[in-house]
Amino acid sequence: MPQSREAVVVGIGRTDFSRNSGRTTLVMAQAAARAALDDAGLATRDVDGLATFQVGDSSNAPDVGHALGLDEGIRYSLNIAGGGDEASFVVAEAMRAVANGVCDVCIVYRSLNSRSGKRFGRMDGASYIGGSQQFPAPHGYVVPPQWFAMAARRHMHEYGTAREDLGAAAINNRRHAEKNPHAIMRSPLTIEQYLAARPICEPFHLYDCALEADGAVALVITTMERARDLKQKPIRILGHEAYRNGSNLIADSSTDFTRMYSAKVGPRLWDSTGLKPRDMDFACLYDCFTYTLLCTTEDYGFCEKGEGGDFYRSGRGTYGGDVVINPHGGLLSEAYIHGLNHHYEAALQLRGDAGERQVKDAKLALVSAGGLVSGSALVFAA
Amino acid sequence: MPQSREAVVVGIGRTDFSRNSGRTTLVMAQAAARAALDDAGLATRDVDGLATFQVGDSSNAPDVGHALGLDEGIRYSLNIAGGGDEASFVVAEAMRAVANGVCDVCIVYRSLNSRSGKRFGRMDGASYIGGSQQFPAPHGYVVPPQWFAMAARRHMHEYGTAREDLGAAAINNRRHAEKNPHAIMRSPLTIEQYLAARPICEPFHLYDCALEADGAVALVITTMERARDLKQKPIRILGHEAYRNGSNLIADSSTDFTRMYSAKVGPRLWDSTGLKPRDMDFACLYDCFTYTLLCTTEDYGFCEKGEGGDFYRSGRGTYGGDVVINPHGGLLSEAYIHGLNHHYEAALQLRGDAGERQVKDAKLALVSAGGLVSGSALVFAA
Repeated sequence: MPQSREAVVVGIGRTDFSRNSGRTTLVMAQAAARAALDDAGLATRDVDGLATFQVGDSSNAPDVGHALGLDEGIRYSLNIAGGGDEASFVVAEAMRAVANGVCDVCIVYRSLNSRSGKRFGRMDGASYIGGSQQFPAPHGYVVPPQWFAMAARRHMHEYGTAREDLGAAAINNRRHAEKNPHAIMRSPLTIEQYLAARPICEPFHLYDCALEADGAVALVITTMERARDLKQKPIRILGHEAYRNGSNLIADSSTDFTRMYSAKVGPRLWDSTGLKPRDMDFACLYDCFTYTLLCTTEDYGFCEKGEGGDFYRSGRGTYGGDVVINPHGGLLSEAYIHGLNHHYEAALQLRGDAGERQVKDAKLALVSAGGLVSGSALVFAA
Repeated sequence: MPQSREAVVVGIGRTDFSRNSGRTTLVMAQAAARAALDDAGLATRDVDGLATFQVGDSSNAPDVGHALGLDEGIRYSLNIAGGGDEASFVVAEAMRAVANGVCDVCIVYRSLNSRSGKRFGRMDGASYIGGSQQFPAPHGYVVPPQWFAMAARRHMHEYGTAREDLGAAAINNRRHAEKNPHAIMRSPLTIEQYLAARPICEPFHLYDCALEADGAVALVITTMERARDLKQKPIRILGHEAYRNGSNLIADSSTDFTRMYSAKVGPRLWDSTGLKPRDMDFACLYDCFTYTLLCTTEDYGFCEKGEGGDFYRSGRGTYGGDVVINPHGGLLSEAYIHGLNHHYEAALQLRGDAGERQVKDAKLALVSAGGLVSGSALVFAA
């Protein structure tokens, strides 16, 4: 195998995010990929790798390549079966593929109709219940809000966390989304509105849950050498760590619901990169639920365990504070593009192209994606 | 990321192959993994990576890790959504992960109940028909025997290939399986029996189709440095190439049915390794159907295009000939473990542990896995 080459993110693209795209995942994946290539200054014919993750709800990588007109085929195709815990992993894998010379130009994409099509928050009658879900399913414990709600309850029990604390995280995200024209939910959110919203699965009400949405996001990755001739400032990856202990979807491999995969990944990532949480200019933390955001903020060391609510309420997670968390509004307020939109935002900010919500002099960012017992995180650098 | 380290196969394991395992894919995956670790001289606690591929019919990698008792979790988990065209790719990916220091000990496995559970040759009424299958499906063109039969017909038209030629490939495999105690179909097969077998989808009859089976196979991969303290001779990977042009399952991205993915991968692999077909001591070629075997034998350059039948009939593909193809009997006669059993056999032969069917002084092997327009191949070395 060839010697290691540095892989960098050189382009980003996306479709509109909406509640009803009216388009197939194949069309949206192509649109996002083409936008990312235009952004980079590359042509479709330059592409020789495609990577994605999905849960049987999207177009697979070789088909997107064929649809892009790559008649000569591609050399690398990664089609991961999995949820949001794969979003940072697939980016790291694609960057490793480029670094290893497996391919030269790789598109990472996620395309889904998670509002107008298969909704993650619902379980239809025909769904297959097997494997690790066969034991909780007879009790009606079948969808993500339920899994994460149980963990949130434990955090409340251990640390006295209240709904107001979860709300502080939701409101922090929403304030950022107000300045993001691409976000679906941009109207101001007060704590009163948050508390009064309809219940989904206690302690989660409407604004605790990611915004199921339709759309696609794509990144283009190539070598640092090639990036010199392209249009955008390349984004580097300084480190990546993953942790998996059983499927994301089951609780039985967690021994402490108040700590997620991030409690393992965080310390390893700071150790391997020699960086600290306070070195990050901003972070895009996976936020399928407010609890995920609160818990991982603590796990990564942005504040002490149990202080997540205070962290957000006191403004430490926004402009002028310690670190800007989810400047785009995250999955809670921008859209649920399954975590790949976090990577788009991170690249945009590090390039200095985030407009009104630009984090000043942004040089370093933590990007994470994961659930209770499975996930990964990476550090991007300008 | 760490500097490149050489990754090698240090252990192999498998369950019985049968028509009715009576066990879950989770239990079989664990059994194969434990057998492979025992074979290597490693303990389950040494494992920090797991990789597999599946079509929603098996236990995913993090769950297998949890079931193996890896309470501290794993650092690398690759769960590919895909068919047999991923079998060599997942091995190459895992070897790259180890080479890059993403993990130190990675298990690659495939576990399936493809006879007693979900059968690949059948389409049940509830199956989802979407994406690339939406156009052929209304014509009843829905299962692999149909896809490959159409390609075989074209080969017959172009090269005068006859059923007797496909039969020669099937019989070559079966002769090898006769000496493989692990093979399900071990009774001698004559050309008369082959021709008289019941039709499945013309020109395919029973013995043209892979042997749907239950079972699991696992490989253990670690670094060459660590291999020095282990029990088995390490198996090296000299090169890997992949080609994808649309999904394996559709014919519309193929411009020539008489050439498969292997027509692209083969020349690239010989070029990148500096090796030639005649350098191979044996080859384990993916053989979901006799046509796949015949066509890829030609594509990889073991014989001229259109001469596959003669190649097998004249004994060039067996002991004493040019190269021993599928010494285990392949998917047609050993079992359909989705191509990972080819990698098991390759490692076994290269170690010199194949007993009565040992290929003498086996040093180099080609292993391939793929369908019409998607697949990959690697060269293993003792």
